[in-house]
Amino acid sequence: MKEKGVGIFDSGVGGLTVAREIMKLLPHEKIVYLGDTARLPYGNKSPETITNFSSQALRFFLRQDVKLIVVACNTVSALSLEALRQNSPLPLIGVLKPGARKGVKVTRNRIIGIIGTKATINSRAYSRFIKSLDPGIKVVSKSCPLLVPLVEEGWLRNKTTYDVVSFYLKPLLRQGIDTLILGCTHYPLLKDVFQRVTGKGVILVDSAQEVAKEVKKILQGKNIQRESSSPPHHHFFVSDSPQKFARIAKLFLGKEIINSLQKINLEDESV
Amino acid sequence: MKEKGVGIFDSGVGGLTVAREIMKLLPHEKIVYLGDTARLPYGNKSPETITNFSSQALRFFLRQDVKLIVVACNTVSALSLEALRQNSPLPLIGVLKPGARKGVKVTRNRIIGIIGTKATINSRAYSRFIKSLDPGIKVVSKSCPLLVPLVEEGWLRNKTTYDVVSFYLKPLLRQGIDTLILGCTHYPLLKDVFQRVTGKGVILVDSAQEVAKEVKKILQGKNIQRESSSPPHHHFFVSDSPQKFARIAKLFLGKEIINSLQKINLEDESV
Repeated sequence: MKEKGVGIFDSGVGGLTVAREIMKLLPHEKIVYLGDTARLPYGNKSPETITNFSSQALRFFLRQDVKLIVVACNTVSALSLEALRQNSPLPLIGVLKPGARKGVKVTRNRIIGIIGTKATINSRAYSRFIKSLDPGIKVVSKSCPLLVPLVEEGWLRNKTTYDVVSFYLKPLLRQGIDTLILGCTHYPLLKDVFQRVTGKGVILVDSAQEVAKEVKKILQGKNIQRESSSPPHHHFFVSDSPQKFARIAKLFLGKEIINSLQKINLEDESV
Repeated sequence: MKEKGVGIFDSGVGGLTVAREIMKLLPHEKIVYLGDTARLPYGNKSPETITNFSSQALRFFLRQDVKLIVVACNTVSALSLEALRQNSPLPLIGVLKPGARKGVKVTRNRIIGIIGTKATINSRAYSRFIKSLDPGIKVVSKSCPLLVPLVEEGWLRNKTTYDVVSFYLKPLLRQGIDTLILGCTHYPLLKDVFQRVTGKGVILVDSAQEVAKEVKKILQGKNIQRESSSPPHHHFFVSDSPQKFARIAKLFLGKEIINSLQKINLEDESV
């Protein structure tokens, strides 16, 4: 069991921000990453389709040699985690609760902003969970559908991105938020722009580090941490062309992964 | 045969601009529309994935009662039309050649601009075809990956859209284009912005009308036009939730289609 890998699932490259933190905190663990790049993005699709696609991903992981699965996509975490758990003999960790808990911990004025995809925000999963932790907290949400395309285009610093971010954040700032939860794994790449728009008074919460801590806690709790001192071999799987993914992954992870990257057909996982 | 429908395929809603022109020019014809909304967009995916998805769409149409199929998606027309033709007993009409022919007809200085998705532009299909019609024409291309998300968000008139369009078109204008082919079925919705950025000296070419004329020519040539005077019943199929599609279709077509709209699973069409 200890030798098995840690599965990480995302619709595309965004989950690599989570993979990076897990590699940092748990350098001995083997990562098995799956990005459904042929069918991305998930964030503006229906709950039914998102659950269908992510159930196929779960069936893929259950045939891999993994001991735990991280759902590193906020949209899937918000909409489909409970449905996936009903069909999974392995522990599943989402990115929503770790980020929300951190937000609740750091807010001082108890007004928290949440940004994410349409599907994530419409699900109201963040605000329900935060209210369950502390009913007195005010939650202000905004879906930001243009941010994922901007990040994917690499428009991380230009004027247009600043304008679009301002448009989305202004209503949250008017409500007096002092904490902003980045409810999409693409958003950490825009941290500089967010902070310029919000000013230093607002704390940005990125769930990737919190998720890595949760993975560590679960592996320790079950005593299934990998102990071998040989370096772990990571594996990456994608449903569209590997070349484009390898290029972007190099930016996220700072290393070449093309030799451990493989294309698969997730549609074969239909039942 | 005459009673059979005209199939129209697109990755999403963009092909409705083509459906509208066909309904106008051939009001007796029954339309069978398919939008692969669960897996859109196609325009930034690999040729292999685009051919795989559109082959599933073809197999779907071959089980429907249609006499001809319009591939109303520029990306599929540019990358997969020949592969589809090899497996189709029915005539297939793409949107690329009709638009390109019109561009060649209207240019005066013989410098033509083409804009489209990454996959369309990278395929070089437009410039190859234009060069085959007239080798002396200069073609200048630019992929505009942020325009589809902007249209899908309904940001049709605001400052950000103007800035993004300017960014994409400036290099084409510097090359002296007098004609701009809108090589993506979403783009006609941005005609006003394009024209403001290019000025009146540049002619915008939208292939939808040309495609409708080509459909008419083929139906006449084969003598398979529908003759019944009873109003045609159109059918719409989508792979994601019908509600969202119905809302947008109402904007494109000016009428309610929810009662003739059905969700299907294209992945069942895998061979």
